[in-house]
Amino acid sequence: MSISMYQASVPSLIRFINNLIVILEKGAVYAEAKKIDPTVLINTRLYPDMFHLGRQIQIVSDVARKGVARLAGVEAPEVEDNETTFPELIDRLQKTITYLETFTPEQIDGSEEKPITLPIGNERMTFAGLPFLLNFILPNVYFHITTTYAILRHCGVELGKLDFLGKIS
Amino acid sequence: MSISMYQASVPSLIRFINNLIVILEKGAVYAEAKKIDPTVLINTRLYPDMFHLGRQIQIVSDVARKGVARLAGVEAPEVEDNETTFPELIDRLQKTITYLETFTPEQIDGSEEKPITLPIGNERMTFAGLPFLLNFILPNVYFHITTTYAILRHCGVELGKLDFLGKIS
Repeated sequence: MSISMYQASVPSLIRFINNLIVILEKGAVYAEAKKIDPTVLINTRLYPDMFHLGRQIQIVSDVARKGVARLAGVEAPEVEDNETTFPELIDRLQKTITYLETFTPEQIDGSEEKPITLPIGNERMTFAGLPFLLNFILPNVYFHITTTYAILRHCGVELGKLDFLGKIS
Repeated sequence: MSISMYQASVPSLIRFINNLIVILEKGAVYAEAKKIDPTVLINTRLYPDMFHLGRQIQIVSDVARKGVARLAGVEAPEVEDNETTFPELIDRLQKTITYLETFTPEQIDGSEEKPITLPIGNERMTFAGLPFLLNFILPNVYFHITTTYAILRHCGVELGKLDFLGKIS
């Protein structure tokens, strides 16, 4: 028995992006209930030189979209970073899921050793597909989902870890 | 080609717990440089009913230790939650790595469909090994590492995402 690159990537990414949508929906409901301008939450950052909530969502979308596309050896569509509302951010995540759903196991499986080159800072670096998935795509996506969660929690939104994990099955 | 349950678990957990140790070391250096009592950082939380930094570290250790043990079908040693300093928290993480290093691929591989039962809230729930790894252990560990990072960043410690990701290879 063993697991495939597809199994270890697309289903979990879709699952956690769906959980992130629920987290954002709770943020939107909270803003409305507390009469807080939603753009205040979207522009909140945990420190002045950290990214605000809206940017966290854009990065989740970019890492998941481009990461899976690189494993499959295709070019991910560019997406403009212009969302300013919760519905727009949620729409971006929903479109990201729709894009991820277009990939078949055949496109991703077997990419364990595929060389993946990507720009990091000013350099171009090359990794094999397996460490790229396990040590870059997945932790990076979880990093920005968790930071979104942390920003909203810090602003008082009532979230629990099960909102992040979703129903485990 | 395919990947194994061991490949998808132990090496990445060790890698990111090592990155977390570096993050804590930077927190300790910052406290000393700014003449901040380190226990202030360790007791910082992003919202009153969230866990403080010290507890985040204990949970990283618990989820990684018990998670991998469950995949292998063995009982993880209990560890007392009594750390109050950066060196003690780092020591706990180092011991966690030492424990993870004792597992061989033979102990973990083939656990994709192994039923894993664990307490969640007041219930006992059962999952198969593969979703337990991909949708519980890994995201949960990354969640608490990221929250630690976010707490320290929020307190002014100069960290960047490469501290979280480490050197990708």
